[in-house]
Amino acid sequence: MTQLESARAGKITLEMKIVAEKEHVSPETIREGVAAGKIVIPANINALPRKPCGIGKGLRTKVNANIGTSPDFPEVEDEIVKLRIAIETGADTVMDLSTGGDLRSVRRAILEACSVPLGTVPIYEAAIKAADRGSVVHMSEEDLFRVIEQHAKDGVDFITVHCGINRESLQRLRQARRLTDVVSRGGAFLVCWMLGNDRENPLYEHFDDLLEICRKHDVTLSLGDGMRPGCLADATDRPQIQELITLGELVDRARAAGVQVMVEGPGHIPIHQIAANVQIEKTLCGDAPFYVLGPLVTDVAPGYDHITSAIGGAIAASAGADFLCYVTPSEHVGLPGPDEVRKGVAAARIAAHAADIAKGVPGAIEWDNAMSAARKARDWQKQCELALDPIAFREYRTGRASHDADVCSMCSKYCAMKVVDEYLRR
Amino acid sequence: MTQLESARAGKITLEMKIVAEKEHVSPETIREGVAAGKIVIPANINALPRKPCGIGKGLRTKVNANIGTSPDFPEVEDEIVKLRIAIETGADTVMDLSTGGDLRSVRRAILEACSVPLGTVPIYEAAIKAADRGSVVHMSEEDLFRVIEQHAKDGVDFITVHCGINRESLQRLRQARRLTDVVSRGGAFLVCWMLGNDRENPLYEHFDDLLEICRKHDVTLSLGDGMRPGCLADATDRPQIQELITLGELVDRARAAGVQVMVEGPGHIPIHQIAANVQIEKTLCGDAPFYVLGPLVTDVAPGYDHITSAIGGAIAASAGADFLCYVTPSEHVGLPGPDEVRKGVAAARIAAHAADIAKGVPGAIEWDNAMSAARKARDWQKQCELALDPIAFREYRTGRASHDADVCSMCSKYCAMKVVDEYLRR
Repeated sequence: MTQLESARAGKITLEMKIVAEKEHVSPETIREGVAAGKIVIPANINALPRKPCGIGKGLRTKVNANIGTSPDFPEVEDEIVKLRIAIETGADTVMDLSTGGDLRSVRRAILEACSVPLGTVPIYEAAIKAADRGSVVHMSEEDLFRVIEQHAKDGVDFITVHCGINRESLQRLRQARRLTDVVSRGGAFLVCWMLGNDRENPLYEHFDDLLEICRKHDVTLSLGDGMRPGCLADATDRPQIQELITLGELVDRARAAGVQVMVEGPGHIPIHQIAANVQIEKTLCGDAPFYVLGPLVTDVAPGYDHITSAIGGAIAASAGADFLCYVTPSEHVGLPGPDEVRKGVAAARIAAHAADIAKGVPGAIEWDNAMSAARKARDWQKQCELALDPIAFREYRTGRASHDADVCSMCSKYCAMKVVDEYLRR
Repeated sequence: MTQLESARAGKITLEMKIVAEKEHVSPETIREGVAAGKIVIPANINALPRKPCGIGKGLRTKVNANIGTSPDFPEVEDEIVKLRIAIETGADTVMDLSTGGDLRSVRRAILEACSVPLGTVPIYEAAIKAADRGSVVHMSEEDLFRVIEQHAKDGVDFITVHCGINRESLQRLRQARRLTDVVSRGGAFLVCWMLGNDRENPLYEHFDDLLEICRKHDVTLSLGDGMRPGCLADATDRPQIQELITLGELVDRARAAGVQVMVEGPGHIPIHQIAANVQIEKTLCGDAPFYVLGPLVTDVAPGYDHITSAIGGAIAASAGADFLCYVTPSEHVGLPGPDEVRKGVAAARIAAHAADIAKGVPGAIEWDNAMSAARKARDWQKQCELALDPIAFREYRTGRASHDADVCSMCSKYCAMKVVDEYLRR
């Protein structure tokens, strides 16, 4: 049985118990959330033991880190380093988005090294095989489903599948005057395949086959937004919302088949449209967990897109988004290295935690209060332990230290918190 | 005449004309805003020629960078380097917050090198002189006002003065159970002085003397929030709001005296309280320009406070804040170096610009659209020119380059924007 089927049958699984304990809520609360489809616990039945992670309503906002080879950087060893750093810095899940080297062996090496739920985008493997034989349009439906089944058997916990790209949304894409057309890699492959073959998207047409694979292995579906806007000018337009309507319908079908499902969202959105994007996902998709990429709130800051997306992610999660995909400083410019992975995870965790305070998630504000008490006490050891990234804390603390270990070099003996103690607290 | 007096007399000054041109609005719009006190143009009549900068309603959100020596790092040369980097990275104004070395000569060197409006916090100089003679409580009122007058004569364009710390707000501070008491350095000096001497704050008691100095030299008042919360737990509490009521009353008196005035705001605020903080400043202070420090949306991320404050700044400015004081990654840990200054300015500019898009500021979204068009065209030279920080862009672009100059190393030949061109645009 999948987690969803168990929950509906009234059964509290081991994964639900572990998630409940981590989230400071009762196992029954988790079971109810999973049964209603408002919480997912991606946990492939074939997977090696991994830390279970609940994603959805009432839970701590989660952070995903993307890693993976590219044709320019095909070494799996590099990605294992990034995997370790992502988990060390606090990523709740990881996605292997490899597109370079031998994809299957890369995936298996990452699966073996990964202690958190792992996601993939199987279309990459199927499309790249075809592209390397000449063109993505030569990808066969059989190949695509064979790759998906292989990922499921290998123990992948959740897969991104762009099932909402269909004739309807593609028609609206062609009518739209977008600045950046399609920026989803999987979406782009499917759009080319559909146009080149004049056929419906197999992931949409044969959605029931997909559900069968996912139910069998309890692979959580992450319904990808292939029509997501790649710039502010394209945000919240007709192709995007058309696709979202379809994703909502597919959520219903997945749930009916006992398959756990979440929905992916943009992308690039101006601040004033973010809350609306979250709300419309919740209404159209029956409160399925919402997994957003960023969103980036401006297009003009390459080199700082961990920051543009932390702003958007914090606002989105405050408005109800459940799961943030990190963006690194390298986004739009190159494949991230280990340092960019660390910065990306830290920035996304800041966004998630700031939102959790706004959402009133149990346990969130207590962390801040402990840090503030340590700060007032000038207990630097405690501050380091409590810091979201102790490595960064130590770097700055030792990099420009004060001669007086009781304070920092910003104010030194004029430290406001220290100065007032003498008069205010006596 | 001050800019405010000129505006009221119906006169459009040279500064108003320059600001109007930069902001894509009419000079009359600027004059009206200045006359109503909703816009300030900090421009000391004794200052060397500097780029005028309008701050307030309907204008682009501005960014301030703090520099300045500390007892641990008293070298003025270091601060001149940081000044140059701050301006190069796009800071609209700079504040000299020096507390180390010979403060007057440091200030004069910075004033001479500064091409944008410069602000200071005169209480530092007066209080530090007294502290170095034994205790801040020995500061004389005459000394304080003499220092303020000196700053005005030297050409400082705006000064932070913590006039809202008075017996009323201090009483509420003593009743409050704050986690971090007072974190404003100027505020801490004044609280100690008041408690040590059992006297009213001279900046409040003799506010008219302050106004006289400011009117004479057209120094813009930046009414400091000495009671600003230093952690989320203390946000939006009684001492803070009590002080804000007083600041609102002082705004009225400043305007009546022909003195330009803006109001400073926190600090550390959880996301869900930010809009309320902006709205209450606007109502209590008669729409005076709102100048916020951050706000930081969590306390747990030392080493990343340029990001925690970019999140808060973007939300605050979207809700109507006019002026963002940057926070660097070093905040709470040490005095920033040049690299932290660059990161701090860039992060604050991202927040300001993202908010300007949400606010519909003229010219804002056009920048993003130009970048998106260059991105779709894979015009890397143009993307670099348009980047908020071209230095960061170049670092990432060359650091992990693709072998194919047409794309980047993230997706290489599988670049979504390139892939769809072949089918979608043919």
